[in-house]
Amino acid sequence: MEFRVKDLALAEEGKNRIDWAEAHMPVLVALRQKYEKTKPLKGIRVAGCLHVTKETGVLVRTLKAAGAELSWCGCNPLSTQDDVAASLAKDEGIAIFASRGVTSKEYYDDIHSAMKLDPHVTIDDGADLTVEMHKGMPKSIRGGTEETTTGVIRLRAMQKAGKLAYPIIAVNDAETKHDFDNIYGTGQSALDGIIRATNILVSGKNVVIAGYGHVGKGVARRAAGLGANVIVTEVDPIAALKAKLDGYSVAKMNKAAEIGDIFVTTTGCKDVIVDRDIAKMKDGAILANAGHFNVEISIPGIESQTVQKKEINDHTMQYSLKNGKRVYLIGEGRLVNLAAAEGHPSEVMDMSFANQFLAVLKLAQQGQTMKPLVYNIDKAQDQEIALAKLQSMGVEIDSLTPAQKAYLEGFAEGT
Amino acid sequence: MEFRVKDLALAEEGKNRIDWAEAHMPVLVALRQKYEKTKPLKGIRVAGCLHVTKETGVLVRTLKAAGAELSWCGCNPLSTQDDVAASLAKDEGIAIFASRGVTSKEYYDDIHSAMKLDPHVTIDDGADLTVEMHKGMPKSIRGGTEETTTGVIRLRAMQKAGKLAYPIIAVNDAETKHDFDNIYGTGQSALDGIIRATNILVSGKNVVIAGYGHVGKGVARRAAGLGANVIVTEVDPIAALKAKLDGYSVAKMNKAAEIGDIFVTTTGCKDVIVDRDIAKMKDGAILANAGHFNVEISIPGIESQTVQKKEINDHTMQYSLKNGKRVYLIGEGRLVNLAAAEGHPSEVMDMSFANQFLAVLKLAQQGQTMKPLVYNIDKAQDQEIALAKLQSMGVEIDSLTPAQKAYLEGFAEGT
Amino acid sequence: MEFRVKDLALAEEGKNRIDWAEAHMPVLVALRQKYEKTKPLKGIRVAGCLHVTKETGVLVRTLKAAGAELSWCGCNPLSTQDDVAASLAKDEGIAIFASRGVTSKEYYDDIHSAMKLDPHVTIDDGADLTVEMHKGMPKSIRGGTEETTTGVIRLRAMQKAGKLAYPIIAVNDAETKHDFDNIYGTGQSALDGIIRATNILVSGKNVVIAGYGHVGKGVARRAAGLGANVIVTEVDPIAALKAKLDGYSVAKMNKAAEIGDIFVTTTGCKDVIVDRDIAKMKDGAILANAGHFNVEISIPGIESQTVQKKEINDHTMQYSLKNGKRVYLIGEGRLVNLAAAEGHPSEVMDMSFANQFLAVLKLAQQGQTMKPLVYNIDKAQDQEIALAKLQSMGVEIDSLTPAQKAYLEGFAEGT
Amino acid sequence: MEFRVKDLALAEEGKNRIDWAEAHMPVLVALRQKYEKTKPLKGIRVAGCLHVTKETGVLVRTLKAAGAELSWCGCNPLSTQDDVAASLAKDEGIAIFASRGVTSKEYYDDIHSAMKLDPHVTIDDGADLTVEMHKGMPKSIRGGTEETTTGVIRLRAMQKAGKLAYPIIAVNDAETKHDFDNIYGTGQSALDGIIRATNILVSGKNVVIAGYGHVGKGVARRAAGLGANVIVTEVDPIAALKAKLDGYSVAKMNKAAEIGDIFVTTTGCKDVIVDRDIAKMKDGAILANAGHFNVEISIPGIESQTVQKKEINDHTMQYSLKNGKRVYLIGEGRLVNLAAAEGHPSEVMDMSFANQFLAVLKLAQQGQTMKPLVYNIDKAQDQEIALAKLQSMGVEIDSLTPAQKAYLEGFAEGT
Repeated sequence: MEFRVKDLALAEEGKNRIDWAEAHMPVLVALRQKYEKTKPLKGIRVAGCLHVTKETGVLVRTLKAAGAELSWCGCNPLSTQDDVAASLAKDEGIAIFASRGVTSKEYYDDIHSAMKLDPHVTIDDGADLTVEMHKGMPKSIRGGTEETTTGVIRLRAMQKAGKLAYPIIAVNDAETKHDFDNIYGTGQSALDGIIRATNILVSGKNVVIAGYGHVGKGVARRAAGLGANVIVTEVDPIAALKAKLDGYSVAKMNKAAEIGDIFVTTTGCKDVIVDRDIAKMKDGAILANAGHFNVEISIPGIESQTVQKKEINDHTMQYSLKNGKRVYLIGEGRLVNLAAAEGHPSEVMDMSFANQFLAVLKLAQQGQTMKPLVYNIDKAQDQEIALAKLQSMGVEIDSLTPAQKAYLEGFAEGT
Repeated sequence: MEFRVKDLALAEEGKNRIDWAEAHMPVLVALRQKYEKTKPLKGIRVAGCLHVTKETGVLVRTLKAAGAELSWCGCNPLSTQDDVAASLAKDEGIAIFASRGVTSKEYYDDIHSAMKLDPHVTIDDGADLTVEMHKGMPKSIRGGTEETTTGVIRLRAMQKAGKLAYPIIAVNDAETKHDFDNIYGTGQSALDGIIRATNILVSGKNVVIAGYGHVGKGVARRAAGLGANVIVTEVDPIAALKAKLDGYSVAKMNKAAEIGDIFVTTTGCKDVIVDRDIAKMKDGAILANAGHFNVEISIPGIESQTVQKKEINDHTMQYSLKNGKRVYLIGEGRLVNLAAAEGHPSEVMDMSFANQFLAVLKLAQQGQTMKPLVYNIDKAQDQEIALAKLQSMGVEIDSLTPAQKAYLEGFAEGT
Repeated sequence: MEFRVKDLALAEEGKNRIDWAEAHMPVLVALRQKYEKTKPLKGIRVAGCLHVTKETGVLVRTLKAAGAELSWCGCNPLSTQDDVAASLAKDEGIAIFASRGVTSKEYYDDIHSAMKLDPHVTIDDGADLTVEMHKGMPKSIRGGTEETTTGVIRLRAMQKAGKLAYPIIAVNDAETKHDFDNIYGTGQSALDGIIRATNILVSGKNVVIAGYGHVGKGVARRAAGLGANVIVTEVDPIAALKAKLDGYSVAKMNKAAEIGDIFVTTTGCKDVIVDRDIAKMKDGAILANAGHFNVEISIPGIESQTVQKKEINDHTMQYSLKNGKRVYLIGEGRLVNLAAAEGHPSEVMDMSFANQFLAVLKLAQQGQTMKPLVYNIDKAQDQEIALAKLQSMGVEIDSLTPAQKAYLEGFAEGT
Repeated sequence: MEFRVKDLALAEEGKNRIDWAEAHMPVLVALRQKYEKTKPLKGIRVAGCLHVTKETGVLVRTLKAAGAELSWCGCNPLSTQDDVAASLAKDEGIAIFASRGVTSKEYYDDIHSAMKLDPHVTIDDGADLTVEMHKGMPKSIRGGTEETTTGVIRLRAMQKAGKLAYPIIAVNDAETKHDFDNIYGTGQSALDGIIRATNILVSGKNVVIAGYGHVGKGVARRAAGLGANVIVTEVDPIAALKAKLDGYSVAKMNKAAEIGDIFVTTTGCKDVIVDRDIAKMKDGAILANAGHFNVEISIPGIESQTVQKKEINDHTMQYSLKNGKRVYLIGEGRLVNLAAAEGHPSEVMDMSFANQFLAVLKLAQQGQTMKPLVYNIDKAQDQEIALAKLQSMGVEIDSLTPAQKAYLEGFAEGT
């Protein structure tokens, strides 16, 4: 078997890390236990292009246990964990082509190496593999999956242009993915990042949260749970009203700027905190972003009034302002849970990757009969994942009786 | 002006109650203040068929202040507050035909009396007025509104059958209605009903909540807020998993039955608590329902194992069971917040009725050009309501700059 | 047996109410079950002077079941529930002398009637019976108990003056009494009173709580639990800092007055909300007191700037102020949980009265050998009560092993 | 000036860290600003023996700004931060004798070097300096302070034995110290340590907390605030009942062992989690201790049933048990907030060290007239600290009027 990793000697460390993730990904493990005997992926070749992390390692192990033959490459030049890659090559015997810090050429060479498997199914994160597949299509392909919003947007554009050649399942759109990672994953890990970067006491602080969507709600709940006094800013009055009825204060950012101790942006929009807000802040204000891009806190808006910059620690920059005050920016305004902590906990990736696994299973079995469209996750699969997660937590739930089902279906006429 | 109420002498008491509601319905009052000078409903005749309560009194005053000429009748034989009706007749000069405890014939006579106004717009709750309008259509009608799910279902059926003769705005579907009354309104008032009926200490109790939809979430949050240990039962694994990740216990009803002190059903389904659950309950268990109909707790399931029934107070029935234990049912298993408390607080009806008012305004102005379909509430109207509510609470929020709007619209290309 | 009640025909209603309380007083019931066979109070005569309520009915039943012979009288001219008194006379055969609305002479006649029993033990609430006992001491007396702070203060004064003739156990000072009724009892019932009086939605309201002692903490927690934004005012900086670190806002009353929707005083001091605060309040502000006396909200401070007073309902007075705004006072500024709701839930009285019962038991057995002093509750008894409460809730806890006990006692030397 | 540090070149890094701590220790800074002009410690020599950390650096700067002449040494062979020590020597000119990893001889040599200052006042943490002072007493000494419980116990023993030669103020006993660091400091940092060591999602986990004292309450509140389902174990029924009424589950450890995902001990006792508990745990259970010593989780109890040990990361050990399950122990069962996170946030040390500063001030001024006893912190000083903290947070509070003071003092007679 061919592969390309940085250093096979790192395999043991990588194995340990995958084991640790695995201990917290019970749904994937339950799927593995369910399918490792029947091996429904026997004879199926799967090519994956997805961040080579400890959680991905658990996905790879699970696909292999279900019988699949695998090739793999990274989906980002900087995200590969070399120890995990080494373990996947050495311990799992995967045709993996990935290392941290590749050039653009190496990056695409790796994709092409992975494609040599002539996969029946592709797993993608950002759609780079899928796009390459379309350039010189391997002949066995039955279908693919996509993990991210960005990728789904690209693939829907391909579909619209009549260019999509095989069916894609949009894992991103599963309720067990986007309704959990934003609220529970980012909620905890954003605060975690702030604490690791600053060791600040959250209790008693005025925490200003810009945006009250899924992420904002998650961060607000965790900040309040740590004893903060939460102030929400919003542009949508319905979301703002929910924040207010949830017991938080709601204010304009320029007003909140005067009292905030910690600011967290979660809006998906740019210029949420700008120069005139910075100018009003208290000495010592801490700024962090939990939205996708580093445009929410205007860094030019800070720098234009800065007289001195000083790195406080690996994650935190001190800006001494013209007005004599200091503000602190964590992780250069990039996603604070990734910049200063470890991103989503394994438990959250567990459900995303269980969706990936089941989507691969479906494509292996039915892909040949599906039209070349972007498909949503079945409600049934979403529920199967949630049920498996519950079972792994030792939680049992009720199910509807036939009489109850009939009642619910007959509801319109009923009363 | 013709009218029919029980006793005009009750007018002052009714006026006081409407005043009190009005003090807690700032959005409607703000709309009144906005429109009472321009009187956009001048020359518009509005017939309403909606529970004659103190909150409805505020809606009537607001429509009148905006220039409308009004007739009114009840939408349920038992829900009219006679003092409010008296005040609407005497103090507001409305052609109201309503009293508590009418017969079915009187009920429809009242509707027909209200129809004599030849309305331009109808306001309905359950669709009885709208259906009557269709039997012998007054000639001026431009459109109507509908407050409830049940009514919307009837009217959509009429539309499907090609029988709908004028446009209907489904107020029920506004986000500022159904996303607030269920969570915040029922959440508080269901607990309020249980406490009024039993004077029980919620703190430290095991509260079993069946269903984790909007109502279940609201009740769970308030029960936990009062110090309860909450156990959720569900049939949908995704909802169950959210309950678990929100920090609650999740179990099957038959298991939860063993440890619950208080049970609240919120599912919309029948037979959620049945005989075998009752049989397992602890001595002293309290049962209440916060779902629409009194079928969630199986009363036959209780009575089949009851040796003695005793009324503990106006709202609470004690059932002594064959197994020697006692269970207590509040309000005959009917909606506990209405049976044992006062239903939704005025603040919640404020937004529903603001939607009603703006829907009437739209129909008065544009109804003649709208097709005879059931329409959703405009997102813009929903946001206008929420904004007015915020302003009434003294809360100011941000708005998007043109540059931010451009950024958000260009998002797809961005990365 | 001699007795004096208002109307024996009320007995059945009283019995029902006592039964209901009993179902929520498991500790007392557990004590009854424990002692009704051995009857350790057989031959012991107990005279009680304590509010004749449904919870007291459960105490009386328990003392009787343990073998005591009983006489009883009220400890306040207005607090007797006549149906409960009737049941105690008819169903329990107690020598009870109590009715609601007695004159001062009748009040003392009743005490003297109860004293004719020549009690071994007295139970008192306010020390009136104990003081009368000292005037012409029955010869069998062994000791007494006292329920309230006020009574304990009087009796400590008697002790100091060398006038106390028999031992008194200060039930009030039990941790299972004062550390639970203030936080959990008043916390819930104060909010309950406010909601019953106003039907207001607590969610999203700015609730100003004056004082952050036991009661203030309890009310703050419950208000936040109902979705309020809580603002605390304090004069003690340590308590204020705790409120701030618990995530609440902290402000001066005169500043909080500007933004509060609901105000609750819990300080034990007078003039906590005064005229200059009232003058700043928003239109519609609601005022309630959860402290002992009706001096916390300055009623003269309201009335001096009032142009019109109007009763909104049984519990709520509207004051229209010179400045054009309206404020609403609940229950005349008296304890809102008693004025507008039902006071402490039975579950809370359960522990107070379990302490009473065990104190009586101790005095019956050891009173003759105890010096005429005011005694605190034994830590052991406090723990026995708490343990019984836990058992009644189905909760089991650990106990220290001998090795653990030795470790804890040897702690000083350890490091 | 003489000093002994590891490497003066580390001074700049140390200065940065002290600056960062200083930005979050506003009370100490406020005291500095208050006293740096009047310099009340001018001519006073202070010798400190206290962990050389960034927070201690802020205390040293403050003492110096108030005029004191200082010498310093570490109070633990392993706790000195060498960069901070370097900055104190170089930037502050302090006679500091401290480095990380000293031998026992070096440790005492450092203490003796610091004593050469002939201090008027000593600051101690554990009483080693104070004991050495008593062996050959410098002549100028007026008094000392003590930071810890352990030290206070030693010094009270000296007092009892008639051996205490100068007055000691027990800073540990200030309410602004022990009532804040345990609840707010450990509450947050214990969870922080667990998350840093495991990156686990707390939401939805069953978190078992042993002990419901100050620390247990703090950890329970934060765990619940992060979405955990909290189960408390206790041996004291009163504390257990409070946990139950606070909405948590309460169980015996051996029962809780079956369902817990994470276990945190906070009891101050040994053998809280023992072999038979370990044997019942679910695969993957995580164990951490937040109590003082590493005896709460029985490590022999784990090891006796372990077949394989493996280090998962710097902080976490995996034990594979005979029964086929794995449990994970964080930080060898030592204080998890220090072992895997950064201990108390600066904000919490702020108040401890403000108490230190004011105690030094008092001893400098009045020590010569105080008897050689261990003194509690004045209530007034405690309140001054809390007030300064509030002011630094921009929080203003009310104060009693003379009329209110009179009312409160006259309370006994009042009613």
